[in-house]
Amino acid sequence: MTTKTRSAFYISDRTGITAEMLGHSLLTQFEEVAFNEVTLPFVDTPRKADEAVDRINQACMPDGIRPLVFSTLVNTKLSSIIKTADALYIDCFQSFIAPMEAELNVKSNHSVGRSHSNRGSGYLKRMDAVNFALASDDGQSTKELEEADVILVGVSRCGKTPTCLYLGMQFGIKAANFPLIPEDFERLALPSALDAFRDKLFGLTIRPDRLVRIRNERRPNSEYASLRNCETEVRLSVALMKQNNVAFLDTTSRSIEELATVIMQKANLKRQAF
Amino acid sequence: MTTKTRSAFYISDRTGITAEMLGHSLLTQFEEVAFNEVTLPFVDTPRKADEAVDRINQACMPDGIRPLVFSTLVNTKLSSIIKTADALYIDCFQSFIAPMEAELNVKSNHSVGRSHSNRGSGYLKRMDAVNFALASDDGQSTKELEEADVILVGVSRCGKTPTCLYLGMQFGIKAANFPLIPEDFERLALPSALDAFRDKLFGLTIRPDRLVRIRNERRPNSEYASLRNCETEVRLSVALMKQNNVAFLDTTSRSIEELATVIMQKANLKRQAF
Repeated sequence: MTTKTRSAFYISDRTGITAEMLGHSLLTQFEEVAFNEVTLPFVDTPRKADEAVDRINQACMPDGIRPLVFSTLVNTKLSSIIKTADALYIDCFQSFIAPMEAELNVKSNHSVGRSHSNRGSGYLKRMDAVNFALASDDGQSTKELEEADVILVGVSRCGKTPTCLYLGMQFGIKAANFPLIPEDFERLALPSALDAFRDKLFGLTIRPDRLVRIRNERRPNSEYASLRNCETEVRLSVALMKQNNVAFLDTTSRSIEELATVIMQKANLKRQAF
Repeated sequence: MTTKTRSAFYISDRTGITAEMLGHSLLTQFEEVAFNEVTLPFVDTPRKADEAVDRINQACMPDGIRPLVFSTLVNTKLSSIIKTADALYIDCFQSFIAPMEAELNVKSNHSVGRSHSNRGSGYLKRMDAVNFALASDDGQSTKELEEADVILVGVSRCGKTPTCLYLGMQFGIKAANFPLIPEDFERLALPSALDAFRDKLFGLTIRPDRLVRIRNERRPNSEYASLRNCETEVRLSVALMKQNNVAFLDTTSRSIEELATVIMQKANLKRQAF
């Protein structure tokens, strides 16, 4: 078991986000090891690659423990420079290009990654969807509900807004959010504004004790944040969803990435953009 | 040159987001090929793996063109099932575990990826930062400016809000946004509320013609959206930033991923969470 900290570098000619995600995920497979993670984005010239090599070698120096380097560099001239560093070089990108070229029977472009630099239609769709989520958060018009790909319903502070934002940012999905409020529970009916959009509804719920904590941050010691009220609201919101055949998810122990992915799957939504 | 569409599957025992990002990025290296991309998340039982194999083989059927499969499966029992499908299997995860085990001299946990399922302190930090960005968007108190890791300044609709949200969601950075408004331009001085926080400021600017298009969507044919006004606001905001030594970036041709990454680098911010 190693107790010393080992450096891990994420190196990319673009943002480095893909290298970070894959590399960090790989590191979580080695829980016993302590890692110091450093991202070096925009390594797109030989000079910057030389500087990266210096940083990697310096990280190796204090105790001789070789860093790990996760690279998504496309340019082989740059990656060959990085490989001169005293480190384990893990090529997250080139490793797969050769088998893909063989399978597809075409040569790759060897152009730098554009998955996060594209300002084309996909990117604009994602930004439209983020702005849609923000606008919907301030209150929805019928026009917005019509435009929505999905409408998340649930009690105040159960996680609708961050999930809508993530659906927009990651998948280009226009997600509106519509709160279920005490008035709906008194009527024991979904808000009538949603009547025309029943097939777009997706419910979120949450454990009452967690809701108490979240609401207390916003309005400490209020009736709104009381356990009694949170329990009642959650119970009635779930009853409403069941009564109206609205599929729903518990947000308590799920990340927004998981929530969004499950909603995409269960609501049969198609990714609108990369 | 292939004209037929080839299927590409992203398979994961969790959300599949890492497989999608890496796989899609690899596909962009083969521009001549048309791909139909399908994500199969939460493949975490042999039965679901069998179903995935059926879907892959069905995608192969119509014209015999083998799909590509990008997998981040950790469980080797599940990946061995997927490998029975008639497809090119690209193992985005296991490919790197063996060299890492050799280098680190420890065995991997072989546990499913937790990079998007962690509800621990890192995840809560990210959600706090997203809520911080949302709250800041509604107007900032001094308390919020004090709490912010970075404060983005710029004219209305230049891209501050989505960039703040992304900084929060991806890096756990608390990013406030503060608009520069006509009153500031008349005084030719930064808002006095920012006086105590000069070292946290980072500027965003935008090409006036692009700003016109964005503002026209919000308030069509207004003075606010006119080319004359947009040109003046942008010119004076840049003058203010230069005069006050505030580093700034042009958002016109950069994605929020790129903007956030450059801001992290230039403002010397440290990722707060994965």
